[in-house]
Amino acid sequence: MPSFLILNGPNLNLLGIREPGVYGANTLSDVEDELVALGKSLSVDVQCAQSNHEGTLVDQIQAARGVFDGIILNAGAYTHTSIAMRDAISGVEVPTIEVHVSNVYAREPFRHKSMIAGVCCGVIAGFGTAGYALALRAIIDQTQGAKT
Amino acid sequence: MPSFLILNGPNLNLLGIREPGVYGANTLSDVEDELVALGKSLSVDVQCAQSNHEGTLVDQIQAARGVFDGIILNAGAYTHTSIAMRDAISGVEVPTIEVHVSNVYAREPFRHKSMIAGVCCGVIAGFGTAGYALALRAIIDQTQGAKT
Amino acid sequence: MPSFLILNGPNLNLLGIREPGVYGANTLSDVEDELVALGKSLSVDVQCAQSNHEGTLVDQIQAARGVFDGIILNAGAYTHTSIAMRDAISGVEVPTIEVHVSNVYAREPFRHKSMIAGVCCGVIAGFGTAGYALALRAIIDQTQGAKT
Amino acid sequence: MPSFLILNGPNLNLLGIREPGVYGANTLSDVEDELVALGKSLSVDVQCAQSNHEGTLVDQIQAARGVFDGIILNAGAYTHTSIAMRDAISGVEVPTIEVHVSNVYAREPFRHKSMIAGVCCGVIAGFGTAGYALALRAIIDQTQGAKT
Amino acid sequence: MPSFLILNGPNLNLLGIREPGVYGANTLSDVEDELVALGKSLSVDVQCAQSNHEGTLVDQIQAARGVFDGIILNAGAYTHTSIAMRDAISGVEVPTIEVHVSNVYAREPFRHKSMIAGVCCGVIAGFGTAGYALALRAIIDQTQGAKT
Amino acid sequence: MPSFLILNGPNLNLLGIREPGVYGANTLSDVEDELVALGKSLSVDVQCAQSNHEGTLVDQIQAARGVFDGIILNAGAYTHTSIAMRDAISGVEVPTIEVHVSNVYAREPFRHKSMIAGVCCGVIAGFGTAGYALALRAIIDQTQGAKT
Amino acid sequence: MPSFLILNGPNLNLLGIREPGVYGANTLSDVEDELVALGKSLSVDVQCAQSNHEGTLVDQIQAARGVFDGIILNAGAYTHTSIAMRDAISGVEVPTIEVHVSNVYAREPFRHKSMIAGVCCGVIAGFGTAGYALALRAIIDQTQGAKT
Amino acid sequence: MPSFLILNGPNLNLLGIREPGVYGANTLSDVEDELVALGKSLSVDVQCAQSNHEGTLVDQIQAARGVFDGIILNAGAYTHTSIAMRDAISGVEVPTIEVHVSNVYAREPFRHKSMIAGVCCGVIAGFGTAGYALALRAIIDQTQGAKT
Amino acid sequence: MPSFLILNGPNLNLLGIREPGVYGANTLSDVEDELVALGKSLSVDVQCAQSNHEGTLVDQIQAARGVFDGIILNAGAYTHTSIAMRDAISGVEVPTIEVHVSNVYAREPFRHKSMIAGVCCGVIAGFGTAGYALALRAIIDQTQGAKT
Amino acid sequence: MPSFLILNGPNLNLLGIREPGVYGANTLSDVEDELVALGKSLSVDVQCAQSNHEGTLVDQIQAARGVFDGIILNAGAYTHTSIAMRDAISGVEVPTIEVHVSNVYAREPFRHKSMIAGVCCGVIAGFGTAGYALALRAIIDQTQGAKT
Amino acid sequence: MPSFLILNGPNLNLLGIREPGVYGANTLSDVEDELVALGKSLSVDVQCAQSNHEGTLVDQIQAARGVFDGIILNAGAYTHTSIAMRDAISGVEVPTIEVHVSNVYAREPFRHKSMIAGVCCGVIAGFGTAGYALALRAIIDQTQGAKT
Amino acid sequence: MPSFLILNGPNLNLLGIREPGVYGANTLSDVEDELVALGKSLSVDVQCAQSNHEGTLVDQIQAARGVFDGIILNAGAYTHTSIAMRDAISGVEVPTIEVHVSNVYAREPFRHKSMIAGVCCGVIAGFGTAGYALALRAIIDQTQGAKT
Repeated sequence: MPSFLILNGPNLNLLGIREPGVYGANTLSDVEDELVALGKSLSVDVQCAQSNHEGTLVDQIQAARGVFDGIILNAGAYTHTSIAMRDAISGVEVPTIEVHVSNVYAREPFRHKSMIAGVCCGVIAGFGTAGYALALRAIIDQTQGAKT
Repeated sequence: MPSFLILNGPNLNLLGIREPGVYGANTLSDVEDELVALGKSLSVDVQCAQSNHEGTLVDQIQAARGVFDGIILNAGAYTHTSIAMRDAISGVEVPTIEVHVSNVYAREPFRHKSMIAGVCCGVIAGFGTAGYALALRAIIDQTQGAKT
Repeated sequence: MPSFLILNGPNLNLLGIREPGVYGANTLSDVEDELVALGKSLSVDVQCAQSNHEGTLVDQIQAARGVFDGIILNAGAYTHTSIAMRDAISGVEVPTIEVHVSNVYAREPFRHKSMIAGVCCGVIAGFGTAGYALALRAIIDQTQGAKT
Repeated sequence: MPSFLILNGPNLNLLGIREPGVYGANTLSDVEDELVALGKSLSVDVQCAQSNHEGTLVDQIQAARGVFDGIILNAGAYTHTSIAMRDAISGVEVPTIEVHVSNVYAREPFRHKSMIAGVCCGVIAGFGTAGYALALRAIIDQTQGAKT
Repeated sequence: MPSFLILNGPNLNLLGIREPGVYGANTLSDVEDELVALGKSLSVDVQCAQSNHEGTLVDQIQAARGVFDGIILNAGAYTHTSIAMRDAISGVEVPTIEVHVSNVYAREPFRHKSMIAGVCCGVIAGFGTAGYALALRAIIDQTQGAKT
Repeated sequence: MPSFLILNGPNLNLLGIREPGVYGANTLSDVEDELVALGKSLSVDVQCAQSNHEGTLVDQIQAARGVFDGIILNAGAYTHTSIAMRDAISGVEVPTIEVHVSNVYAREPFRHKSMIAGVCCGVIAGFGTAGYALALRAIIDQTQGAKT
Repeated sequence: MPSFLILNGPNLNLLGIREPGVYGANTLSDVEDELVALGKSLSVDVQCAQSNHEGTLVDQIQAARGVFDGIILNAGAYTHTSIAMRDAISGVEVPTIEVHVSNVYAREPFRHKSMIAGVCCGVIAGFGTAGYALALRAIIDQTQGAKT
Repeated sequence: MPSFLILNGPNLNLLGIREPGVYGANTLSDVEDELVALGKSLSVDVQCAQSNHEGTLVDQIQAARGVFDGIILNAGAYTHTSIAMRDAISGVEVPTIEVHVSNVYAREPFRHKSMIAGVCCGVIAGFGTAGYALALRAIIDQTQGAKT
Repeated sequence: MPSFLILNGPNLNLLGIREPGVYGANTLSDVEDELVALGKSLSVDVQCAQSNHEGTLVDQIQAARGVFDGIILNAGAYTHTSIAMRDAISGVEVPTIEVHVSNVYAREPFRHKSMIAGVCCGVIAGFGTAGYALALRAIIDQTQGAKT
Repeated sequence: MPSFLILNGPNLNLLGIREPGVYGANTLSDVEDELVALGKSLSVDVQCAQSNHEGTLVDQIQAARGVFDGIILNAGAYTHTSIAMRDAISGVEVPTIEVHVSNVYAREPFRHKSMIAGVCCGVIAGFGTAGYALALRAIIDQTQGAKT
Repeated sequence: MPSFLILNGPNLNLLGIREPGVYGANTLSDVEDELVALGKSLSVDVQCAQSNHEGTLVDQIQAARGVFDGIILNAGAYTHTSIAMRDAISGVEVPTIEVHVSNVYAREPFRHKSMIAGVCCGVIAGFGTAGYALALRAIIDQTQGAKT
Repeated sequence: MPSFLILNGPNLNLLGIREPGVYGANTLSDVEDELVALGKSLSVDVQCAQSNHEGTLVDQIQAARGVFDGIILNAGAYTHTSIAMRDAISGVEVPTIEVHVSNVYAREPFRHKSMIAGVCCGVIAGFGTAGYALALRAIIDQTQGAKT
């Protein structure tokens, strides 16, 4: 059964706690539970991880090689600065989709640039936590050749 | 029945003709047919338009006011320069999703900047023509409050 | 009788419809009617046109040659990017005044630069739709040598 | 009776003396006399001041609080650099219009940027000394709700 | 018989009318007539088109596919901003030469950058309307393998 | 009793060891002891932490939520690049003061920009290790409404 | 008895008058009275001055040489542009602390750069008018070697 | 008989040797022979020179004064940096055409800028070694008033 | 007898007091005395003024019109920012030479740019206070047509 | 016996695994073994470490103080952004050489800038894994005064 | 007897020939003769050289070491780009004055930057060929301690 | 026997003469002698050349084609600006290593950029004249496949 990693970066563990009016009342573990369930309904295995540490995220991307068929990555603030994560994604050659909960293009200019997008398959941004589900459908479509 | 506009900008009419190795063999009208069918299966009305003219695209966005519940917009090359399309989207207040067939962030630097993303709900890029279907699910989710 | 063209660019046809709290409840045609009336009271002919198409605006500026004594131009979003309109204004040598309804200098940075102002007689910005009347008085003054 | 301040910055005292071919033969005091007369005909009080000193202009803007209904400000060279004048305008909350005799946008690039325009009601530039009269009509219109 | 399109962009229809001291007294239709005649003498078919509309120029480049053996394009002001025309040229894969009547490199800095040159065979600029004839010889040489 | 966190970032553990001529002979633990004592004398609880790891600092800021009444943060080198720490400070909404031992504005240009200052209450820089005491007085003043 | 100058720049004389919701209801003379009192309690002499004139502020900094033991300077808007004040501070070699009432790093980008901070001992920003008291304690500590 | 100088800069002596797949198998002396022959057929004298030395190229441009009717200059890498050659061309006032064998606009960004083009009659780039023949026809046309 | 103004800007009144090791032990009035004496020996009248106020310097340049045959101006820190002084120099059309005591090009980058040099006859920098004497010889040479 | 630390940063643990065609088939531990052996043959102790965590690398540089005679550092992606590592190297004053396996100057522009090189003894880049051996010889030479 | 080198760079050999209306009718050798004569009258030896070759100028600066007491250098176009000449001046430690015949600050922006001024004693620009005589007086003053 | 060229650029002939405290007391010819000797011990032929002329260096790189197996190039100041040398290195396809005696990254910003590094095998900088020996070992290793 194909397997996918949902990897969240710094401060995403505050989902549902921080500014619920903006991000909704779902906590990160609510979101992860929904994605595991959606995975089951689509016959794929979904595993989840989060870290505030750039190095740990690099470790996890490296560890995904040969284990996961794809990564759904919300790198949070590291999106805009991390060449290390970019190199890790290039190095392991596991298809990766960049996701953002908010529309980063409607926020401060320093959030408009991504160091990571250029080595990902694609980007999904601005659809709240529903963006993860869209990304899961997309990564299955990209890697399994199946219709969503 | 909710209704959505799939609006394509310059050179998208060459889909399936130009570089099929990159973009797939589906022509724009194949893609449009699939989206109409997907819309039917999701109980929404889907209409499609394409133009190479920035002014015509502005006209069509304006004309969407009160007619469509949302717009899925691939503005092609105008994405990177058109303040007029940005103003039209702001002006009509119809929820709009920006779509790109290719991963624009992996191409020339002048394609990394969007004049439009900041006034859209979100962005989906890099999933080939499958990105339109993802966007259709997302816009329904955003505007109809229904689960994808 | 001297004759002047009031030429409006993209999205100005949404005046009075879009954000009336900001722009007032007057539609573009209300504004045009007032300007025709003011022209009559000042013994000049006033004609009006609007287009969302950059090319059409270039056509209209070219067509003004030998027909109009001056142009009052609100180029909207094309103000900030259109070298073609700049060239048309230089080419036809009809005195032109740049008008903006809002104070563009208090908005996003990309609205602070004008490609057009350098080849116009002058600029009037920030006075709502009353700016067109000020511009009409100014263009008459500039081209007819009469006191306002 | 409403009262307005015409405030001129550095080197404007050379009007009519410096390059009359460009700026006309009217001296600053000719211009000021005409504006006082125009004010009288429009039933408003007009007072005039000029200084080459940034600090004095800041003082005069501050002193306008509660005394004048609006300011017509040609800040001359300080337009492009003075954060202090910007702060003074914001601080006293007296409606202010930025005026320039020449079309600053057709001159050196360092004259294209205004530190002040963003906190003014609007800008009038390029109409010679007639721009002050246009501005007087505009400020009356903005502050008195009367038609010009 | 090989066939070539001479495609002119915004404001080129003013040739011979605008500033004859600079551009010569030949109108665009004089130039086009000469090129058709030169084509005849070189045994190639020459057709001509002009538009002030970016979208129309994109349409015409697309329509050249399979019809013309090469395009001689003076994109005028759109040269410096049009990603849409760049994409159209790339998309249709018809060899294209960029021509300018004036030496754009001796004019304003914003005319020194071309969005189009990178996807053309080459550039000819600064030889007045004689540049079109040079380009016609060059495109025949490039596409027909014949000596000029 | 109100409680405050003194949080030091990378290389601050070298205080008193590295360049004592510049930074004084006090080690970080000397400084921390003084702050705890000062806290006691001002009837507030002071706790201290240091890490060279950006991720650990993000963890500690998050953990301060609901535990501390304020944070005194010397983010060291991460000050200039860490969007992750910025997001953490915004997310937990614990009042934070940015402190630097040296006058960063008198050093290399890349130390003049702070990614963090914009979401802090304020900044104190250049007073050696005495800056922490000033910050402690300031944060008590800001959060407890008491006079220093 | 050591003596210190509290020197305020342009628009600081509006304290307590301009936007009391932001800056508090204390006027500049309230703040100055408190600082004189605080000085007395700390056995130092405190004198105060304010000017909207860059040249006057330069004069006052020069006059501080040999008269004051330190300067607490809120240069207001001149902070961001005045090389003349920078040179004066360097020239007289009186220790100077830069103070800002608001957190300038959370405001417009042009307020993030200081021409003066590099020649001061340090910077205190964002603590309202309480920042002056912090600075007074800091300058005494810096120049008198006494504990705050 | 009119006389023209073909002047080639650094590394052009490697033509036909370096990357023949790109530049063709013609050596520089083949190209020079063809141009001399073409000159003969067009009744003009053609002389040729090449140097890798910026100073020698400046010497040769200076020496062209009063000797040649025009210069066809491929300055190679010096195109992008040499103010000295620019000044020489301006100084001697011999009409000069800038030629490039490759399409420099499709190569690295540092090759897109020319220090020389602004003082030449025009530019021809991207037509391989055939560009020299086009330039010869153009310079004859420009300087002799004859039809090509 | 021709008459010249030696005009010094902010902080130049500290000459001989500030850093005598760098600037020499001559005070400004020593320098002025030497220049008056040199003037006498060269049969010209020399007058001197200094101010720390930008506005006063503008006043003095304006007042030089019709009174002095030339100005020797060391604008100090205002050199790098003052458009007002630039406009004053242009406006009064009195030949002006820019002088600096130190070699500003060997100091901080913000001292390398002059807003004033472009409207002066020339610049003399880096020769200590001897530069004023060189400038006096040069201005006499420029304006009186006499040999130095 | 002198002792040296070979310190590798993020993603270097993928050596020999990632793109062996580019980086060779040697894994990081092969490289480390060779360096230890080379050290033995040159009578120096060599120890090796790798981490993907910026903070851990800062810890290891700090811990090298008084333990190692020099560091050979391949900071990988952190090379281009880490001020924290720069500060650590400056702080511990252990001579450090920057090494890169690939020629970073022939890759993306963001890899051309090093935050670290300015505080290292020198840089060796582009010689594959053989660069580590060159660096070991260089650091022995620098620190032991012996010939390689 | 002290000895000085007058060293002129590219295109200065065209003095008196190129644009005599601007530069005067004096040729370079006229200027050199006058300087030798002035040197004689001031009891110093003056020698002169000119080259269009950057390398030759570097050679001549190097050769000045131990031979000349100072250099008066007009580097012409190389002023703005030559790091090699900068390094040569630093290396030989012969005091050097930068001279320009025209006021380079009133010409194109690329002439406003000098790579050389920072390692010279000073700069004299804009006084025509009389600037060389001023520089000769200045260099004698600087190096011989004598009064001009 | 393999043969290598040691090629030094401008001002390197001053080695051992200029600032011996920084560069050591070895002259360039001492360094060249050592390299010839080291070459002998490693069974390779070493030849040496130096020039201050950019054009001569281009000539020598071109002449290396088919004669030398590799080049060790210290281009001195031309490193940062010479596109001509870059093109020559690309053109002749002789493996080249860039060497610098000092750590250029710790000097002025204009020395941080290399126009040449991107077409070399690698870079060695900061090891004094010992860097040439390291480079000789590296080029043998790269081109001969032998272990150092």
